[in-house]
Amino acid sequence: METTIFIIVPSGVHPLDLTGPAQVFYEAKTLGADFELTYAGIENVESIHSSAGIKFGGLRSWQDIALKENDIIILPGAQMEQMQKYNRDTYCDFYDWLVLQYRNKVCLCSICTGAYFLGVAGLLNDSSYTTHWRYHDYFRKAFPYGKLETDHFFVSNGNLITSAGISSGIDLSLHLVENRYDSALAAEVARECVLYLRRGPSDPQLSVFMDYRNHIDDRVHKVQQYISENLDTSLRISELAEIAITSPRNLTRRFKKVTGITIGTYIDRLRVEYAYQLLKKGLVFSSVTRQCGLKSEEHLRNLLKKHRNQLPSDIMS
Amino acid sequence: METTIFIIVPSGVHPLDLTGPAQVFYEAKTLGADFELTYAGIENVESIHSSAGIKFGGLRSWQDIALKENDIIILPGAQMEQMQKYNRDTYCDFYDWLVLQYRNKVCLCSICTGAYFLGVAGLLNDSSYTTHWRYHDYFRKAFPYGKLETDHFFVSNGNLITSAGISSGIDLSLHLVENRYDSALAAEVARECVLYLRRGPSDPQLSVFMDYRNHIDDRVHKVQQYISENLDTSLRISELAEIAITSPRNLTRRFKKVTGITIGTYIDRLRVEYAYQLLKKGLVFSSVTRQCGLKSEEHLRNLLKKHRNQLPSDIMS
Repeated sequence: METTIFIIVPSGVHPLDLTGPAQVFYEAKTLGADFELTYAGIENVESIHSSAGIKFGGLRSWQDIALKENDIIILPGAQMEQMQKYNRDTYCDFYDWLVLQYRNKVCLCSICTGAYFLGVAGLLNDSSYTTHWRYHDYFRKAFPYGKLETDHFFVSNGNLITSAGISSGIDLSLHLVENRYDSALAAEVARECVLYLRRGPSDPQLSVFMDYRNHIDDRVHKVQQYISENLDTSLRISELAEIAITSPRNLTRRFKKVTGITIGTYIDRLRVEYAYQLLKKGLVFSSVTRQCGLKSEEHLRNLLKKHRNQLPSDIMS
Repeated sequence: METTIFIIVPSGVHPLDLTGPAQVFYEAKTLGADFELTYAGIENVESIHSSAGIKFGGLRSWQDIALKENDIIILPGAQMEQMQKYNRDTYCDFYDWLVLQYRNKVCLCSICTGAYFLGVAGLLNDSSYTTHWRYHDYFRKAFPYGKLETDHFFVSNGNLITSAGISSGIDLSLHLVENRYDSALAAEVARECVLYLRRGPSDPQLSVFMDYRNHIDDRVHKVQQYISENLDTSLRISELAEIAITSPRNLTRRFKKVTGITIGTYIDRLRVEYAYQLLKKGLVFSSVTRQCGLKSEEHLRNLLKKHRNQLPSDIMS
């Protein structure tokens, strides 16, 4: 079912706050996801100046759009002085509408100081959230009943997702693509955007489909793409080398050099992840084994034990 | 002297191609850099649809702007079908103007398929360059005299800088900020954008000021910022712990956990980098030692040997 991505554009918006998510959902759409992007102003305006000078235009009114459960509202931020002019009194209809969308289970996502809208709407009360590091103190004072998390790129709390700032709107959006579709699509979108993926002790863990793509060797990317799309086959190195238009020996060396792991380990990890997804869906073990390109159930059982430290029964239950 | 950043907006532009650089230069400007951002269309239009639907407006005409040596033209990309309508015959004035800017030593930077403009203008002939991975084959055929590099985020070749695609326009722009000002400012901009910095075997090496900032622990960032701004002082851990509002023991643990190195090693590396920059500028060794917060020249000599494997004379010559 089509998901509407409704981006609300404040005056003085930070361009990257807005276009990070827009680019991610646009690329996901060109890769087959059923997303529809729409943009609106808060005031009744057709275009708005961004902080960096360029104007954003073709904006609708937020009143004109009917959203349904699971649709997504993106709230990019602007400089704090700009945000503060969106006070509760003048914009009470807008804030009432935001609260209504929240109750209707539309997913509300703030980027950077966009969390200000959620705060004024009262939606941060008793909720964990994050915002741009520069405004941590300001938010603590302005919204004392919210639980500010200061060490996450984004914080997901039911149908409220907040991100740390500017470029982390990209992370938040990749997370949504991964959640609504799967991690393979999120990895493809990241690759389309030539994006490095975030790593770090306080990141939400990304799936193995997103791992090891942190390089710019095009031939290795081609091989990784092929592997992820052909996990049900035997995946011989000679065959992968043909895809990379190189020798098996050279591919093996190159793969290890840019990803840090061997092709064999990479394939195993993707198979384990894929098996996990299929088991979660309720498929029987023999069918999962076959779809993961493995001949023996024992083999898959060993891989699950080794890489996830889980028995099939742990996952299926 | 003020640098004009002149962003040329093709019809159907990829939003992130444009706003990645725009956000970087805007943040650098708010942090004190003397950049002026201006946007123009290629056709004589006031606004243009982006690939993701939102319109970019307030565009000037490229004919209206006089650029000087070292000013910067950014050429974002669009979908290839859109790019191809900018053929040489219809837009010959624009291409002649581009070539003239190149000869006048304006810095021409393409993002993603924006390299198409440089190709049609004949500026990729015998030059190394890069573009979005999806169009490598297309570019090889269309511009056979260029040297396509397929494993770099961006390629810098005199006053021609090309980037691999979409988000790598951010890397290219950070590189320009670093080049025009210094790596400390580039690191501050990246931090303002909540950007992870690119790492990888085929990246151009970034300076140590950009290293070890690949985390989201706000207190550790504060300490790192303080260190980079106070290299001429003694920098005791007790004093750094006060800045982080924590105990020396806890700061030490936290710093190591998120950066992977100790505070002491971090300070040493920044001092060596700073010393290197000052020696390159021609300052005498005793003065450099003092400005790096070190009491003995022997100490600095040892640090340079250990971390750069260079003698002061190697750098000064």
